[in-house]
Amino acid sequence: MNFSSKLIEKAVEAFATLPGIGRKTALRLVLHLLKQDKTVTEQFAGALVAMREGLRECRICHNLSDDDVCQICADARRDRSIVCVVENVRDLMAIEDTGQYRGLYHLLGGIISPIEGIGPAELNIDSLLQRVQEGAIREVVMAISPTIEGETTVYYLSKKLQPIGVQVSVIARGVSFGGDLEYADELTLGRSITARLPYAR
Amino acid sequence: MNFSSKLIEKAVEAFATLPGIGRKTALRLVLHLLKQDKTVTEQFAGALVAMREGLRECRICHNLSDDDVCQICADARRDRSIVCVVENVRDLMAIEDTGQYRGLYHLLGGIISPIEGIGPAELNIDSLLQRVQEGAIREVVMAISPTIEGETTVYYLSKKLQPIGVQVSVIARGVSFGGDLEYADELTLGRSITARLPYAR
Repeated sequence: MNFSSKLIEKAVEAFATLPGIGRKTALRLVLHLLKQDKTVTEQFAGALVAMREGLRECRICHNLSDDDVCQICADARRDRSIVCVVENVRDLMAIEDTGQYRGLYHLLGGIISPIEGIGPAELNIDSLLQRVQEGAIREVVMAISPTIEGETTVYYLSKKLQPIGVQVSVIARGVSFGGDLEYADELTLGRSITARLPYAR
Repeated sequence: MNFSSKLIEKAVEAFATLPGIGRKTALRLVLHLLKQDKTVTEQFAGALVAMREGLRECRICHNLSDDDVCQICADARRDRSIVCVVENVRDLMAIEDTGQYRGLYHLLGGIISPIEGIGPAELNIDSLLQRVQEGAIREVVMAISPTIEGETTVYYLSKKLQPIGVQVSVIARGVSFGGDLEYADELTLGRSITARLPYAR
């Protein structure tokens, strides 16, 4: 692509480093910004820099946070006796969006993956064990993706947590709502039958 | 979407104002930036602000330019006897990418569109006529998208240009009717420039 302007070229290249954005899309975004008022670009850039400079890790649950302690950990209305263990902030947001969970979280920062060289020491496991040992937590819910690495992580954590005397649970595996039984994989469908529940409505 | 962080929320909203980027994609981009070093975000934001603040309009052809005169107008190797009239900078870039054109450009800044309230007065037509009247230009090539509005614009321009005694040509109809120049493949667009025809209506 010929830009005839170094400034445009640099802005396009900046956008094109982002995942899923190619050079044509990047150019469209740059030309969009050029059509808007200068303040739009300034505010856009400002929001990103403020976010990147201001964000910290919650010292309790390792969630991304504006302050020393995140909004969820600081929320007095949440149930402090239950902690949901998730891989990252995206999974946390997905669970928050359901509106079905009112406890606290603990972000591992990844899952155990020998192939990628991620062992228990690389994850926020010590701080989880410490939180549980303090005694106020009654239940730890594992909300980890049901992959090989995920299952390994859940197994490792349960072996560490159960001796402390806390209840460990995992999110239900089963057929998704709106999904066709016909297209569910055998493992999921099999699990959904063995883990069947009494019908109550 | 629940963010539990005002900083993330603002950054996601900033990305989501861009065309073709929804809130889920915006969140992915924000989390991508968070995974990178702080300087990546600073450089990204800096490139956009520098682009938006630094860019000007070339005083000769109205192209986006880093300086008073754009790189193309300032390039001594280009043929100054021929001017290609385009709607906007995206069309200019598309033609530059073909490598088939070595003359200068003139950006109209739009096309005549009564529906959108864009008449000849809103476009960079006076400056085109003035450039041609100065006498050094032998030929004006119309590279306008072959839509109704585009044809109207070409017709209007040719009526203004032909009395001055300059040759007016249009890019060859290798480009499909109703198609946008921006999306034409380089071969077709390049052929349409080399096979341009004298304008006769």
